[in-house]
Amino acid sequence: MFTVTVRDHLMIAHSLSGDAFGPAQRLHGATYLVDATFHRPELNGDNVVVDMALAAQEVRGIVADLSYRNLDEEPGFAGVNTTTEFLAKVVADRLADRIRDGALGPGAHGLTALTVRLHESHVAWADHHRPL
Amino acid sequence: MFTVTVRDHLMIAHSLSGDAFGPAQRLHGATYLVDATFHRPELNGDNVVVDMALAAQEVRGIVADLSYRNLDEEPGFAGVNTTTEFLAKVVADRLADRIRDGALGPGAHGLTALTVRLHESHVAWADHHRPL
Amino acid sequence: MFTVTVRDHLMIAHSLSGDAFGPAQRLHGATYLVDATFHRPELNGDNVVVDMALAAQEVRGIVADLSYRNLDEEPGFAGVNTTTEFLAKVVADRLADRIRDGALGPGAHGLTALTVRLHESHVAWADHHRPL
Amino acid sequence: MFTVTVRDHLMIAHSLSGDAFGPAQRLHGATYLVDATFHRPELNGDNVVVDMALAAQEVRGIVADLSYRNLDEEPGFAGVNTTTEFLAKVVADRLADRIRDGALGPGAHGLTALTVRLHESHVAWADHHRPL
Amino acid sequence: MFTVTVRDHLMIAHSLSGDAFGPAQRLHGATYLVDATFHRPELNGDNVVVDMALAAQEVRGIVADLSYRNLDEEPGFAGVNTTTEFLAKVVADRLADRIRDGALGPGAHGLTALTVRLHESHVAWADHHRPL
Amino acid sequence: MFTVTVRDHLMIAHSLSGDAFGPAQRLHGATYLVDATFHRPELNGDNVVVDMALAAQEVRGIVADLSYRNLDEEPGFAGVNTTTEFLAKVVADRLADRIRDGALGPGAHGLTALTVRLHESHVAWADHHRPL
Repeated sequence: MFTVTVRDHLMIAHSLSGDAFGPAQRLHGATYLVDATFHRPELNGDNVVVDMALAAQEVRGIVADLSYRNLDEEPGFAGVNTTTEFLAKVVADRLADRIRDGALGPGAHGLTALTVRLHESHVAWADHHRPL
Repeated sequence: MFTVTVRDHLMIAHSLSGDAFGPAQRLHGATYLVDATFHRPELNGDNVVVDMALAAQEVRGIVADLSYRNLDEEPGFAGVNTTTEFLAKVVADRLADRIRDGALGPGAHGLTALTVRLHESHVAWADHHRPL
Repeated sequence: MFTVTVRDHLMIAHSLSGDAFGPAQRLHGATYLVDATFHRPELNGDNVVVDMALAAQEVRGIVADLSYRNLDEEPGFAGVNTTTEFLAKVVADRLADRIRDGALGPGAHGLTALTVRLHESHVAWADHHRPL
Repeated sequence: MFTVTVRDHLMIAHSLSGDAFGPAQRLHGATYLVDATFHRPELNGDNVVVDMALAAQEVRGIVADLSYRNLDEEPGFAGVNTTTEFLAKVVADRLADRIRDGALGPGAHGLTALTVRLHESHVAWADHHRPL
Repeated sequence: MFTVTVRDHLMIAHSLSGDAFGPAQRLHGATYLVDATFHRPELNGDNVVVDMALAAQEVRGIVADLSYRNLDEEPGFAGVNTTTEFLAKVVADRLADRIRDGALGPGAHGLTALTVRLHESHVAWADHHRPL
Repeated sequence: MFTVTVRDHLMIAHSLSGDAFGPAQRLHGATYLVDATFHRPELNGDNVVVDMALAAQEVRGIVADLSYRNLDEEPGFAGVNTTTEFLAKVVADRLADRIRDGALGPGAHGLTALTVRLHESHVAWADHHRPL
């Protein structure tokens, strides 16, 4: 099994609903380091898991769409707790959609799974892993 | 599948028995960075894997119990090689006990596994993974 | 010359005014890693620059006061661009005030300067350095 | 399940063939951080996954054989794209050979798998995972 | 005193002349993480040291010009040992030229010095510091 | 001004005397990451600050002498608080002695200062800076 990972980051504002979140119920924000990992049982003809430049570009696009926003006011997230875990899933699902739409080229056919890790600080991070 | 990880650290003295340990047979010590990872197939109603503040607090408690000690003199570790691997298991097992005792709240019901990574330096670390 | 540094972090929302900030003019947020460095020409009688536990506790207090807030709505920052550089100065100045008020104990008399570094991501950070 | 990881690094020159590699088709180079992870279901009698000093020494040997070379001129890699993914496999396979030859001692009998991660920069890395 | 730092990276091939370089006399390569630090006594009207987006863009341009090349064949480096230290100076000097030419805007007038750090691995790095 | 830094690490046991140290008054231990920085106004004929391989080897020797020991029982440290700050000075002074004795070769003549940073964890570190 092989994987390739590319790192990017995004910066957003949001608040979280529920007593469990304590002071994070107030409007605040985060820098998320985003590690997107592509899984594949065997390398393709170029000896890669995926075209890393294309992969980085697609991650960049997804991250840019989310960046510099107040997620509390995004219609797509209305009534949703935009936790680190949830946002890892959002990035992974959007990336899966772009792969299915061919954005990573025909060489991406062999990809079998994605893992997206979001680091919210140097002491806390969350992963979402999903098949393709 | 989702995971959340929180990082803490502990500092201890110990020695290791067996020729394979070379100079580490002498009394020495280590700072261990502790990464505790909680696994769960689906997010709970708050859109989280676990209450991260509670999780960090329980890890803190376990780490504090071990910290600033000479493990060679701890009755619970008599005759035991307190290697990095072994201590990863100690932290994971104590954390599993606290979860079973409800310390992470009812929302922790859905947790299915734990991984504990202990970094002994910037060039060496060990993991223990166990079901819950 | 000796220094000691302790690291903490804070998470805030804010927006920045001025064309130069591009999309960061929108309400967004950041996780800042905070590295507070204490300078002293010679060690004190305990062979330390400063009581590190007290230092970490005071940094924690300053960071907690700023955390989980929308800085755009803080009266103390009205009309101010709360850039990374500016916030590094805020943390340094508040820390200097606490040192002058004795919060780090009599052993902190010999401190001569502070440096505060705020990392806004893995690829960007800012420092403020000031005498005491 | 337990793992132990040791980190080393290597520096090489190479070029990559295929339009997908863009400017990396030119002769260039890389520093690869190498993380070699040893998997084992249970600890051995010394409470370790593997003799970490021996493991680090074998990784060092494999890394030294590859280091400070132009991989384009290595007969063993003729006509091969020496991508990060491919080199992760090279390191893993060579390590597996050494383990099978007894280089990590009889205590290495219980190892069941290897993962080798090569970081090509702070924003990109690749893994290869294989059974033993 | 304030500073702002932006990080980027470059990948090159080269060889180093002189017995002191041992195996690095052979053609090999490196990934350099590049940390460019801008110094300024006081913040400008936007409360920044420099327009960070412009700064990152100029560093990107300088890094791209050097990237994916065999430095042994670059006419500008003929007969020169392109050590980490030397390359730190190259990046700093090119950045100083761009600042002098106005690439960072009028707001960059107040910059007084640059530091460029190149990391050649996780265990070795070099800095060059120069006035503006 | 140029600098070069090499990183190594050491693992020791010790205890610290004085109420200010709280639980660290008990016998415990630490892993210290050691960053040794060599300063020089101009590069030498090889375009380096110092022979990095020799520098790493001397740092290795100093670190090995301190490693895997209980510092409380080292005659040279009798009655001394072996704090992170103090140990940074020990490493720096020993390195200065070796440089004066010619261990880094004639090319080290031009070195003007040393900085030694010891990281005791991911959230705390200390520096000592001294002239040569």
